[in-house]
Amino acid sequence: MPRWEPDTRERLVRAALDLFTEQGYDNTTVAEIAERAGLTKSTFFRHFPDKREVLAAGQDTLCRLLADGIAAAPSAATPLEAVAAALDAAAGAFTPGRRDLGPKVEAVIAANSELQERDALKRVGLAAAMTDALQKRGVPDPAASLAAELGVLAFKRAHARWADPANQQELGELARQSLHELQVASAALS
Amino acid sequence: MPRWEPDTRERLVRAALDLFTEQGYDNTTVAEIAERAGLTKSTFFRHFPDKREVLAAGQDTLCRLLADGIAAAPSAATPLEAVAAALDAAAGAFTPGRRDLGPKVEAVIAANSELQERDALKRVGLAAAMTDALQKRGVPDPAASLAAELGVLAFKRAHARWADPANQQELGELARQSLHELQVASAALS
Repeated sequence: MPRWEPDTRERLVRAALDLFTEQGYDNTTVAEIAERAGLTKSTFFRHFPDKREVLAAGQDTLCRLLADGIAAAPSAATPLEAVAAALDAAAGAFTPGRRDLGPKVEAVIAANSELQERDALKRVGLAAAMTDALQKRGVPDPAASLAAELGVLAFKRAHARWADPANQQELGELARQSLHELQVASAALS
Repeated sequence: MPRWEPDTRERLVRAALDLFTEQGYDNTTVAEIAERAGLTKSTFFRHFPDKREVLAAGQDTLCRLLADGIAAAPSAATPLEAVAAALDAAAGAFTPGRRDLGPKVEAVIAANSELQERDALKRVGLAAAMTDALQKRGVPDPAASLAAELGVLAFKRAHARWADPANQQELGELARQSLHELQVASAALS
């Protein structure tokens, strides 16, 4: 028995990413993804409505982790400290065993406008989840929206660095670092 | 001869918005939009690839106005002052004659996830245009990305206020006001 057995969803994500990388997103069918994963098309459709959604896998989990991270931050935490806690919580889902997915995801998205669109929508979802969680802590708008946008920007920048095979840092550490850089930059904007 | 003759593109946008409002986005066909505008389907397709793109009409113009506004800002302008100039320039496209479109656009987008997606993508495009223009002024990243995100957030908030029929202020004024609120909120985040 293998020490680590990826679950069905992850097998589909890996198969899709490999095919998108090898032959392009447009040229890849759901049937091919299922076959590569050693699964049936109907199993694919139990997990994803279409091939585009494969790249947004984990959005719900990420939203939940971000929201829970904000809710669990100490009551004295500032909005940005709460966002930092959220990024730490979300980074926990990006385990070392999944690090090889990072560069593939970045490359596949960069090569296809339909996936860039889905990725943009995902970021909007993450920002909304954080805004909502911050508001529940009593952070008023626009501070809540702004802190959430900073969080999303930090996470995006951190993920790009994490996806660089030359980088050895953990995603959570990179996210905190990116958030700090944004704070410093923010002070010099006006 | 009418004093103000909307061009073909604007006729299509108005017809689409009216139909989306009356019968829903999903229930509206391109043929109906063309008919309502008193135009043919092939004229529609000369202007837009599909009905979804109608709501993103003007994105290219907006991107250009934002980029030009940033480029034309005084060389001593801070990144946020350059963004404020960009928002002013972009607001110029939202003439009083088009103000009635504001509430319809907001309502139609709020009612349909496919349009929210397109709108999210539009905002990503606007942010990219501003980031690029700021970088050309020598603003380094992440300051450029951050200032651009603040600009997009300010513009979005200003548009929502502008779309409120009870509001009498100009969009440019509302955008500057929103940007100022974001700056104030930004200082209190950490």
